[in-house]
Amino acid sequence: MRTKVRVALVGLGRMGRIHAGNLAARCRSAELAVVADADPRQAAAVGAELEVPWTTDLDEVFGDDTVQAVAVATPTATHSDLVIGAARAGKHVFCEKPIALDRPATVRTVETVRTTGVKFQVGFHRRYDPDWVAATGRIHAGEMGEPYLFRTSLRDMKPPPVEFLAGSGGFFVDVTIHDLDTARWMVGEIVEVSSYGSALADPAIRAIGDIDTALVVLRFESGALGVIDNSRAAGYGYECSTEVMGELATTRIDRPQRRHYEWLTPGASTYGLNRDFEDRYPLAYAEEMEAFARCVRDDTAPAVTGLDALAAFDLATAADLSWRTGRAVPVVPERR
Amino acid sequence: MRTKVRVALVGLGRMGRIHAGNLAARCRSAELAVVADADPRQAAAVGAELEVPWTTDLDEVFGDDTVQAVAVATPTATHSDLVIGAARAGKHVFCEKPIALDRPATVRTVETVRTTGVKFQVGFHRRYDPDWVAATGRIHAGEMGEPYLFRTSLRDMKPPPVEFLAGSGGFFVDVTIHDLDTARWMVGEIVEVSSYGSALADPAIRAIGDIDTALVVLRFESGALGVIDNSRAAGYGYECSTEVMGELATTRIDRPQRRHYEWLTPGASTYGLNRDFEDRYPLAYAEEMEAFARCVRDDTAPAVTGLDALAAFDLATAADLSWRTGRAVPVVPERR
Amino acid sequence: MRTKVRVALVGLGRMGRIHAGNLAARCRSAELAVVADADPRQAAAVGAELEVPWTTDLDEVFGDDTVQAVAVATPTATHSDLVIGAARAGKHVFCEKPIALDRPATVRTVETVRTTGVKFQVGFHRRYDPDWVAATGRIHAGEMGEPYLFRTSLRDMKPPPVEFLAGSGGFFVDVTIHDLDTARWMVGEIVEVSSYGSALADPAIRAIGDIDTALVVLRFESGALGVIDNSRAAGYGYECSTEVMGELATTRIDRPQRRHYEWLTPGASTYGLNRDFEDRYPLAYAEEMEAFARCVRDDTAPAVTGLDALAAFDLATAADLSWRTGRAVPVVPERR
Amino acid sequence: MRTKVRVALVGLGRMGRIHAGNLAARCRSAELAVVADADPRQAAAVGAELEVPWTTDLDEVFGDDTVQAVAVATPTATHSDLVIGAARAGKHVFCEKPIALDRPATVRTVETVRTTGVKFQVGFHRRYDPDWVAATGRIHAGEMGEPYLFRTSLRDMKPPPVEFLAGSGGFFVDVTIHDLDTARWMVGEIVEVSSYGSALADPAIRAIGDIDTALVVLRFESGALGVIDNSRAAGYGYECSTEVMGELATTRIDRPQRRHYEWLTPGASTYGLNRDFEDRYPLAYAEEMEAFARCVRDDTAPAVTGLDALAAFDLATAADLSWRTGRAVPVVPERR
Repeated sequence: MRTKVRVALVGLGRMGRIHAGNLAARCRSAELAVVADADPRQAAAVGAELEVPWTTDLDEVFGDDTVQAVAVATPTATHSDLVIGAARAGKHVFCEKPIALDRPATVRTVETVRTTGVKFQVGFHRRYDPDWVAATGRIHAGEMGEPYLFRTSLRDMKPPPVEFLAGSGGFFVDVTIHDLDTARWMVGEIVEVSSYGSALADPAIRAIGDIDTALVVLRFESGALGVIDNSRAAGYGYECSTEVMGELATTRIDRPQRRHYEWLTPGASTYGLNRDFEDRYPLAYAEEMEAFARCVRDDTAPAVTGLDALAAFDLATAADLSWRTGRAVPVVPERR
Repeated sequence: MRTKVRVALVGLGRMGRIHAGNLAARCRSAELAVVADADPRQAAAVGAELEVPWTTDLDEVFGDDTVQAVAVATPTATHSDLVIGAARAGKHVFCEKPIALDRPATVRTVETVRTTGVKFQVGFHRRYDPDWVAATGRIHAGEMGEPYLFRTSLRDMKPPPVEFLAGSGGFFVDVTIHDLDTARWMVGEIVEVSSYGSALADPAIRAIGDIDTALVVLRFESGALGVIDNSRAAGYGYECSTEVMGELATTRIDRPQRRHYEWLTPGASTYGLNRDFEDRYPLAYAEEMEAFARCVRDDTAPAVTGLDALAAFDLATAADLSWRTGRAVPVVPERR
Repeated sequence: MRTKVRVALVGLGRMGRIHAGNLAARCRSAELAVVADADPRQAAAVGAELEVPWTTDLDEVFGDDTVQAVAVATPTATHSDLVIGAARAGKHVFCEKPIALDRPATVRTVETVRTTGVKFQVGFHRRYDPDWVAATGRIHAGEMGEPYLFRTSLRDMKPPPVEFLAGSGGFFVDVTIHDLDTARWMVGEIVEVSSYGSALADPAIRAIGDIDTALVVLRFESGALGVIDNSRAAGYGYECSTEVMGELATTRIDRPQRRHYEWLTPGASTYGLNRDFEDRYPLAYAEEMEAFARCVRDDTAPAVTGLDALAAFDLATAADLSWRTGRAVPVVPERR
Repeated sequence: MRTKVRVALVGLGRMGRIHAGNLAARCRSAELAVVADADPRQAAAVGAELEVPWTTDLDEVFGDDTVQAVAVATPTATHSDLVIGAARAGKHVFCEKPIALDRPATVRTVETVRTTGVKFQVGFHRRYDPDWVAATGRIHAGEMGEPYLFRTSLRDMKPPPVEFLAGSGGFFVDVTIHDLDTARWMVGEIVEVSSYGSALADPAIRAIGDIDTALVVLRFESGALGVIDNSRAAGYGYECSTEVMGELATTRIDRPQRRHYEWLTPGASTYGLNRDFEDRYPLAYAEEMEAFARCVRDDTAPAVTGLDALAAFDLATAADLSWRTGRAVPVVPERR
């Protein structure tokens, strides 16, 4: 009989509640053991809804011998301490990206976790979406030959509140980091990053010196080129789509439709667009948590690790530097 | 040097003007010699616009030795006499469908033209549309194996005036006839027709005992089944699309987009639909006239002949009979 | 705190295992209490995989006071007795379609269950698919005005074994029944059914007097027309798609893509098609079981009941009769 | 009566033959007067095919009083002299892009033509494609609000022969120039260009120091960002597609399908892709020549002029410089 991995979920913001719901009801190999949040009302509400214990006390979570793993979805600034604390308590750890807002903390976290020997998976959910997995699998199997051009869009419908932006680590660490991980995953290591940004949609964003629209040009180790476009204010909806053009084939991953029906009125055919990442990824978040649980249960390595998070973080900070200096920034991929 | 075939165009209603314009400016192998219409103002206006002579006198057209061919786009009731007159004058003939509103006149026209030896092409334009030609070519080449199921839609956005309907020959002869020709062309001979109709959109249509929505079930000689759906009031636009499902492959022909761009607004992606047959068939009408001219010039047989028109007419009257009797109507394909 | 409804799953064939998996891991409001199958190895295997008790003894299931509901996914011939047995034991019942292979047994089952007062939901999963729910919701909200034309396809990639067909209740009761329920749900009651069938794909199907391709024309009470096309041998994949054309709008529900990416090779763009109902309906089966559990928990009426199953069964037998007699068969919708 | 504009076509390579065919048979307002080419066999062959006089002597063309306009489709190096010669002979001029391979010759040509007062249209055909015209019209009408992001692809299926590349003026002047004109047309003036290139597909291209894949980042005067991706070796086909994301709406122009039908085989749906610009633009080339003829006949200004060609040329050379230096290159738009 296969035993479900008991996972504690820490941090009950939007992502945390998504993960909690998935752990409670959509992961074959996982079981939600307990939910924790600094706010007791939030913790109690989610605990009641999902019919699991709740707490505000992390020591209780880390000290619970029946808890095998911890999923961290708290604000970024707390990630590093929580991850290290959980790992030192012998819990396997899933952590939302980014691990930290600076490189030393990121490195320290990755290194500390490594010494404990627990599993460590980072929340780049696209790596677990069935569409991306299928297309990337074909690239890695050689069906595309050499990739020549990588192109991806990640766009939000509307900007978040300016207060959120102030603590987000900046545009590239907050938004582009997902695309940088995807680029590395699909095509390979990146050796140069050049960024361009503009604040167009919201004067408040411009006022805090931030941007809402960006282009990031990538040069891969192989010589292939790549471009990422990001927006916090796409207006029409949430978009995440990718193209990789290669020697033998080209692939395009897209799923803009919220529901799979058209509605035709005089002279026009219309379909509804995804409005946020939950619309866009109906399966990926549950898959990523299920995959984490299976790694724990079967003692296998996660597909996306702390080192991947570090690499994406380094590329995001290179993108930030390029944007600030107007120069291409070389990057040296770490060899593991 | 290749000489252009000089074609006279008779009948300057909507279809006639489309053909005149194509003959004047979009057919490599044809030249518009003269336009004729019973209404001198209409004839003069089109003649001036297209910079060709005009007349109201058909004897003048039929007696003109420089005219090699005549394209007939007058009201249906006049087709038969005009076709016969032109053929007897030694002119090759293109005629809009249907040839006549009754079987004896249709047969007489086909037979008479045959004895004159001139080329005779009927206006089933779908046979000349590049998309249909390509897909049907693959079926005929055997890429599909045996066809199992044929399905086609032909729908107008809005009903024509009731006065037009009164003289149209009835729903099946006016509308479905195109689909019946397409079915024979793509899949083969038909041995049974069953029809169902309803008047839903316009009380005036119901008042004259006509219908605006119909389904026609076909049984092909091969055993394959087919279904045609027709509407005079689709509302969203003009549609003509077909599917053939077969043993080895299935094909779907469609082109609903009027222009190839999407327009995305918050939560919705929209594209513009075809509103009429001119939107839907940007190339087929010119192609059909060009093909006719090439048959004349190169002395080859048209792809769609008077016998095809007769066969489609017989199927349309069988559909009408089935609708009126509520029974399946057997049809015996004529062997040529 | 919301308590999960404890559901016993009886019958561990393909559909039964799908339901068991969903009850075990993808329904917020349900919990898989026990699995039962006549074959102890099958029952034991699924019980082990899903970490739930198993049994071969239905009395044990019906006598278990902690079991609130039973989901029946056994072979059709056993449905009626099982449903009645469960209902008499005070269990709420979910049953796969059809309830029985003859009308008296269907009526008796529906009536008996009604007297017990338990919830009774039948497995027309399309009613729970998010795409269908969304489009149908807009029709019911009046956004379409009067429906004029209903069109739907249900096609399997390959025929099942002939042995299965022999006990399936016939083509229309086995396949078309789903479309008949969809037609009633989306457009309204049906008053006439005309069917056409052909055995084209497999000589063995012809040999047992069955068909593999069918067209069913519907006349709705409102005067609207409808057409269903069904195939057991579509070849390219599994298809379930629907169009409803109406006075103010037209809708098309489709989701042919198995994964949402294209693969482009020289001169061609290709995407993968759904191969079976599991590909096509990634969410509907879990949704239907979740909805059932919520009806039990919240004491609300299921969206699709025994009477709906009876109505679809009557329409399917009318379709069968029409096919056998070559005549349109009138149907009198039962008023509840 | 409207008189057709008599146009002489000079240069009978691939583009010249396309223009000649359109002038001969697909432009309502133009008439092909004569074709000219340095190669008498080529000139004679096209003249015979299109049934028009031919010559190898440009003085004859320029001295022919019945010729009102000249269309220049010769190799780029000869454009400037031919345009100036035609203009000085009082002929209106259409010229393929680019006008010349260096800025002084481009400026001199534009200035000289301006002094003669003849119409001067340059061959940016996308400005005449119905899809682009429709979408751009909506942007210019304000339906999009402020554009935020421009993105376009222009990709050839296979690289041309290396000998052609050597005389092409370089990647950006040969390929990207079309996209730069499109960017200016759709979004507005550009103030900074940054380019990235790579030679990936063909060692011969690398050997001559050229590239086959490029990314060009644009900064518009408005602050909007843009990115162009170009490839000489897309492999799957010819692509030209554009997106403009804006404040109120986003538009995507695309037409990858060569024919509008799908072909479904087990597990896969496939459609044919455009293989070259003729597939992609079935109407734009005829439209651009028709528009030129109407400008001549109606004495109106062309939509795309010598100054537009100069602006695109300047941007292309800026892109070339950016690629060579690795720096963003500022551009000062000329005010007219």
